[in-house]
Amino acid sequence: MSSSWVSDIAPDSPFSLANIPFGIISTPADPAPRAGIAIGSQVLDLKVLSSHPKFSQIFPSLKGHEGIFSEPTLNAFAALGRPVHREVRKVIQDLLSAETSHPEILKDDAEFRGKALTPQRGVKMHLPMSIGDYTDFYAGYHHAYAVGVMFRGPQNALQPNYTHLPVGYHGRASSIVVSGTPIQRPHGQILLDPAAEPKQPVVAPCRRLDFELELGCLLARPNSMGVPIGIAEAEDHIFGYVLLNDWSARDVQSWEYVPLGPFNSKNFASTVSPWVVLADALEPFRTKPIENPTPVQGYLKEGREDTVFDIELEVELETPQGDSTTICTTSSKHLLWSFPQMIAHHSLGGCPLRTGDLLGSGTISGPAAGQRGSLLEMSEGGKKDVLLYGMDARRFLKDGDAVTLRGACGPPGGRVGFGECVGRIRGAVNL
Amino acid sequence: MSSSWVSDIAPDSPFSLANIPFGIISTPADPAPRAGIAIGSQVLDLKVLSSHPKFSQIFPSLKGHEGIFSEPTLNAFAALGRPVHREVRKVIQDLLSAETSHPEILKDDAEFRGKALTPQRGVKMHLPMSIGDYTDFYAGYHHAYAVGVMFRGPQNALQPNYTHLPVGYHGRASSIVVSGTPIQRPHGQILLDPAAEPKQPVVAPCRRLDFELELGCLLARPNSMGVPIGIAEAEDHIFGYVLLNDWSARDVQSWEYVPLGPFNSKNFASTVSPWVVLADALEPFRTKPIENPTPVQGYLKEGREDTVFDIELEVELETPQGDSTTICTTSSKHLLWSFPQMIAHHSLGGCPLRTGDLLGSGTISGPAAGQRGSLLEMSEGGKKDVLLYGMDARRFLKDGDAVTLRGACGPPGGRVGFGECVGRIRGAVNL
Ligand SMILES: [Ca+2]
Ligand SMILES: [Ca+2]
Ligand SMILES: [Mg+2]
Ligand SMILES: [Mg+2]
Ligand code: NI
Repeated sequence: MSSSWVSDIAPDSPFSLANIPFGIISTPADPAPRAGIAIGSQVLDLKVLSSHPKFSQIFPSLKGHEGIFSEPTLNAFAALGRPVHREVRKVIQDLLSAETSHPEILKDDAEFRGKALTPQRGVKMHLPMSIGDYTDFYAGYHHAYAVGVMFRGPQNALQPNYTHLPVGYHGRASSIVVSGTPIQRPHGQILLDPAAEPKQPVVAPCRRLDFELELGCLLARPNSMGVPIGIAEAEDHIFGYVLLNDWSARDVQSWEYVPLGPFNSKNFASTVSPWVVLADALEPFRTKPIENPTPVQGYLKEGREDTVFDIELEVELETPQGDSTTICTTSSKHLLWSFPQMIAHHSLGGCPLRTGDLLGSGTISGPAAGQRGSLLEMSEGGKKDVLLYGMDARRFLKDGDAVTLRGACGPPGGRVGFGECVGRIRGAVNL
Repeated sequence: MSSSWVSDIAPDSPFSLANIPFGIISTPADPAPRAGIAIGSQVLDLKVLSSHPKFSQIFPSLKGHEGIFSEPTLNAFAALGRPVHREVRKVIQDLLSAETSHPEILKDDAEFRGKALTPQRGVKMHLPMSIGDYTDFYAGYHHAYAVGVMFRGPQNALQPNYTHLPVGYHGRASSIVVSGTPIQRPHGQILLDPAAEPKQPVVAPCRRLDFELELGCLLARPNSMGVPIGIAEAEDHIFGYVLLNDWSARDVQSWEYVPLGPFNSKNFASTVSPWVVLADALEPFRTKPIENPTPVQGYLKEGREDTVFDIELEVELETPQGDSTTICTTSSKHLLWSFPQMIAHHSLGGCPLRTGDLLGSGTISGPAAGQRGSLLEMSEGGKKDVLLYGMDARRFLKDGDAVTLRGACGPPGGRVGFGECVGRIRGAVNL
């Protein structure tokens, strides 16, 4: 990867020339949400770029779609398919590179460049896609095992189906918000003493509010209802990836989740990072997943071994006093199932997956202490303190806490990452 | 209710003047989907009606929304709220009544009437709303108990939470289809011998394909994220009702559903009836639900006792040979929880419900034989034959079978119903 003429790209910026992530932006000067890409600490406004007289010439694959970057979501762009995303990303990399073949467009045109490039700090980020359906899987083996022990004991921690199919459930699309949106502590039915009989819930603000560190996958091409997506084609249905915080009300969850699964414990909010890292940008970071001891069915067999990505993930907790502690450092490789396997399984019965659908990986925890992707695991079910800077400690989240997920991979100067996925807890409303 | 000047309204038509259900129609003459209402065997094209010079005068509540019935979904109309739906329904009842106060609009204008009224048999029906999220509850007590016995035994048939909260789970919005759409038998992972150890699934077409008889509720007004809907306001958030067939792959379900709930066993298809019966049209048919022995939390307490509807429901199974048998006759009153309770619970933690969201009641079974809303119950878990006309029998659905749900209430000449919710099973595709 050559270097960029764009100034101020820090070596550790997740938005190097090797990345080119897409998002939906607005600015005080133009409050209409539209597409942009992140480069260093700047944003390239793709609506402005689309207005350049040479736009159609340098982006031939967007012929007939000149307004696509003026739309308020990335859905139409995603639906064009991976060959188009690949070409568009390459052309943008060329435009921003020091040895660009088109210096007249941006590099040498100070006036146009000034309109097209804006500092990120002045840009408002929006939900990148219109998400029709959201499915949360459970592919983080270490998380599934640890939580299974807490909810059902070590004998039944993992159900017999766990290594045969990517377990997942339908989530709530309406409460997916973009990074930065405040997260209100939910009320719910909870058992103050889960062991007491008869079981008598109260209605109260959640006392065991948690985060879940997940990787999210956004879909490009749809499949027709009734037509499963073969695992060999599944990659072609992927648009890109985001970080996902699947906020969870653990006390609500343990009371409500039998027999039909999590409901109000999950549907009050889920936060995604604003920049969609295209599938192609993560290709160099492939690695092997957790080995599955069980031989899988043919529709889940992949033609390669490096089916997941080794993205360095971390979780930072900031207290209301402003003290920040990195409470988790792990990798997105700690999955038993890959996203192509999730897609093949999800569509096996003919379920139509649509452009913009979000698939969550499930909470990603590593095998060691310090690699746990939820407070439930770190506090061992709320029994141990998680120590924080500022002489503080947590078992679950307090009002005013902010949780920031980060994820990036690659060498200095060539980092590919998501930026931040952040949410701060706001006190419960009065009912 | 006075009588209508519209010819050919049979006394047992579910689309009497007392109903006025809304749907999305298209015709060979105008293939653009748009709004209409059903009256007897006719459809009143509301887009045509909107073109009448007196439209704004007779529908003052639609001022500024003159194009609302030309849209391809009912969402914008639903979002206007119940006072508007009430007024619009009343005006349409007046226009169609024998003693209409505006005979010049339709009754006495043969030319305009000919354009606005079309026989239903020439009309194509579409999904009435754009459904952002679909939640399926489990409020049919007799069904929940009977199925719980089969999946978990009589001791654990109903979980301790069942009488404390309306149990529900998030369903799949993308696979909701309108009545008449063929239903393809899904493939899935199934255990040929569920008792054998170790458990070894195969991938095969579903062998225990079932229907579920449900009432669906479509939402009108949204709530803001973080703001629960109080039970006293919940009625104002309801647009209307449809019949819902929650097709279910029982062999897939029993293997996949622990611990996160049903997934591929449900997401291949759900069918809704095309005509939305407005909430106001069902007001005269209120009755008491199943008595809940458990005192419920304040947010679930309603100010009245008649919180559900007594709608006569039936299920007809037609074999590929054309023999039809009514295999279930029950009532929509057999619910432990009302829709206002479901809405209050769903939004308790702040989950935003949006215009067009679909809530399913859960399978509605009565207490007696002949009142069971699924084959799983009728066949006692696949162990007994359900006898059909034509010397035939079923435990689960065969390819070529058609399942028709019907629901209606009220006296002859004043029936309020949904028409049919039908789907015919098509053989599995080759993988
Ligand atoms: Ca999760
Ligand atoms: Ca159901
Ligand atoms: Mg969530
Ligand atoms: Mg269904
Ligand atoms: Ni095109």
